[in-house]
Amino acid sequence: MADAPGSGRVFERLCVVGLGLIGASVALAARRGGGVGTIVAYDASAAVRARVVELGLADIVADTAAEAVAGCDHVVLCVPVGAIGAVAAEIAPHLAPGAVLSDVGSVKGAVVEAVTPHLPAGVAFVPAHPVAGTEFSGPDAGFAALFENRWCILTPCEASPEAAVAGVRALWEGFGARVDTMSPAHHDLVLAITSHVPHLIAYNIVGTAAHLETVTNSEVIKFSAGGFRDFTRIAASDPTMWRDVFLNNREAVLEMLGRFLEDLSALQRMVRFGDGDGLFELFTKTRAIRTSIVAVGQETAAADFGRRDA
Amino acid sequence: MADAPGSGRVFERLCVVGLGLIGASVALAARRGGGVGTIVAYDASAAVRARVVELGLADIVADTAAEAVAGCDHVVLCVPVGAIGAVAAEIAPHLAPGAVLSDVGSVKGAVVEAVTPHLPAGVAFVPAHPVAGTEFSGPDAGFAALFENRWCILTPCEASPEAAVAGVRALWEGFGARVDTMSPAHHDLVLAITSHVPHLIAYNIVGTAAHLETVTNSEVIKFSAGGFRDFTRIAASDPTMWRDVFLNNREAVLEMLGRFLEDLSALQRMVRFGDGDGLFELFTKTRAIRTSIVAVGQETAAADFGRRDA
Ligand SMILES: NC(=O)c1ccc[n+]([C@@H]2O[C@H](COP(=O)([O-])OP(=O)(O)OC[C@H]3O[C@@H](n4cnc5c(N)ncnc54)[C@H](OP(=O)(O)O)[C@@H]3O)[C@@H](O)[C@H]2O)c1
Ligand SMILES: NC(=O)c1ccc[n+]([C@@H]2O[C@H](COP(=O)([O-])OP(=O)(O)OC[C@H]3O[C@@H](n4cnc5c(N)ncnc54)[C@H](OP(=O)(O)O)[C@@H]3O)[C@@H](O)[C@H]2O)c1
Repeated sequence: MADAPGSGRVFERLCVVGLGLIGASVALAARRGGGVGTIVAYDASAAVRARVVELGLADIVADTAAEAVAGCDHVVLCVPVGAIGAVAAEIAPHLAPGAVLSDVGSVKGAVVEAVTPHLPAGVAFVPAHPVAGTEFSGPDAGFAALFENRWCILTPCEASPEAAVAGVRALWEGFGARVDTMSPAHHDLVLAITSHVPHLIAYNIVGTAAHLETVTNSEVIKFSAGGFRDFTRIAASDPTMWRDVFLNNREAVLEMLGRFLEDLSALQRMVRFGDGDGLFELFTKTRAIRTSIVAVGQETAAADFGRRDA
Repeated sequence: MADAPGSGRVFERLCVVGLGLIGASVALAARRGGGVGTIVAYDASAAVRARVVELGLADIVADTAAEAVAGCDHVVLCVPVGAIGAVAAEIAPHLAPGAVLSDVGSVKGAVVEAVTPHLPAGVAFVPAHPVAGTEFSGPDAGFAALFENRWCILTPCEASPEAAVAGVRALWEGFGARVDTMSPAHHDLVLAITSHVPHLIAYNIVGTAAHLETVTNSEVIKFSAGGFRDFTRIAASDPTMWRDVFLNNREAVLEMLGRFLEDLSALQRMVRFGDGDGLFELFTKTRAIRTSIVAVGQETAAADFGRRDA
């Protein structure tokens, strides 16, 4: 680690492993923010590595993970959650003493479990999750502003040295993110309701629509502007990433899905029995939550999300 | 009715009843498109009428519905679905012979049932539903471009004279909309899956999130960018409008919700038993639907819907 947060340089040599949407955005944000010296990149896919060179995302593109992490004081794993353990095992013997290891996985409990056994003495692990994304994947999808004004959640272990946590915090703040810390278990519960169950529901309704006999697929597509369209965007998210999320955050997802289903039974009953007052009351309450999200700056109030100007 | 479609003027005197998001947008689009001569407006709310005057949405703002529709060759009811029958009853005795009556209600079967008994001889009814909207309501939310490149579905009755249907079609095409026709029952089924169930699901998950004890409301709001945010936009839609939709399209909504729940049980089981291949297969299929929607121009592919530029 180089200087203290605020003074500019946070890490001398940053290694990004996995140059998809998030990894490429980390590299671009790091380059723009000036918080790191050299940027080293490694991806398991030769095609991605070639593209990283073409896009100029890093100073050095290494051919192996071992080579990539050597001499780096910070390594960020930006691979799917299911691959993080294997990558940690692969790089562990090559990590520099004093290095800070981090990741960007959307699940934290399973990642901590998968990485901890491989952690060499003298290497700190500070798990992170930037709550930001789009439905696109791959290195071309990355952009430097992705994390601006978005939250990045750190779930440091008790063993994580304070200086390591401060370094990771400073790096993400340099990307324009706001940083919060919590336990891995609490993170997984919060994200189950704010992200994982919404994705599951979106995948499900788009799947249901695709299998109807009474309404054709082309009708679904034509008339999607009535609300369905927003679900399709979420349901277009990367299949590998989301498979790994559901395989690795099962308990919290099933718990939150259970709550959702209980509430949906009550709502179904209101529709069946024509309970207009009950419907109106719920619909009024939910409107207030939207207002709060706009108020704290996590969304624009512009009609149509500015779609008209896109 | 004035001239044939294409020649410019479609109706001489248009009356818009209900100047909320849709009614105000109809008035603005009609003014911009030049398809009508005089625009007359009426709203049950005195405050809305005053605002309509301030915004200059119409040439004449009438104090009663009877006065408003007198002498108009086209009347569009832009009030909530549950109010359309009562408004039809109120204006019926005052409709000009030969006038064409229409509406913009999000449900069509119940609207046809509610309006038909009041229809005077010599007045044609051509129900319409522009599949376009935002989560905002009221006259200030209206804008002329709302219907551009969106579908407007007409559900004409057998009794609707061809010329009346052609007139309504020409008017909406003049607003920039693409027009399709189908039966009211089929409309209600298509919209149940593309719009009504998605709204119900969005209202439900936002409601569930608001009632958790393990995750606070402020955490839900802070970390909404993970996917939840898109649901809150949908769940911020007008409570009166949506109560009326669910009260008036009960059968189709319950039918589609039943399908959704069957599929969700299967998906829940995949998560519970860690069926990664099953999850991956579904997630890959749903991605293709999104691609089709972008391909037919009902959405932009821009990352984040251009939110970054908003
Ligand atoms: N997308 C989001 O919205 C979002 C938001 C926050 C956090 N995250 C997290 O960010 C991580 C990456 O997601 P992403 O959206 O950036 O995915 P992505 O665009 O699919 O990129 C992942 C990259 O990692 C590579 N990779 C896979 N296994 C590897 C291995 N063993 N060694 C080296 N590289 C490997 C992949 O190569 P191949 O193409 O050859 O597989 C791919 O280039 C995930 O853990 C995800 O949970 C995602
Ligand atoms: N919003 C959408 O996304 C969307 C899309 C397509 C179609 N639609 C349909 O469009 C219609 C209007 O929706 P909207 O979003 O424009 O709603 P809105 O913004 O709430 O506007 C409805 C207006 O109608 C007025 N109104 C209510 N009852 C009336 C009556 N008996 N006589 C005269 N005026 C009356 C309301 O006045 P008060 O404020 O005093 O109640 C309000 O100004 C609904 O049938 C809806 O299903 C909506």
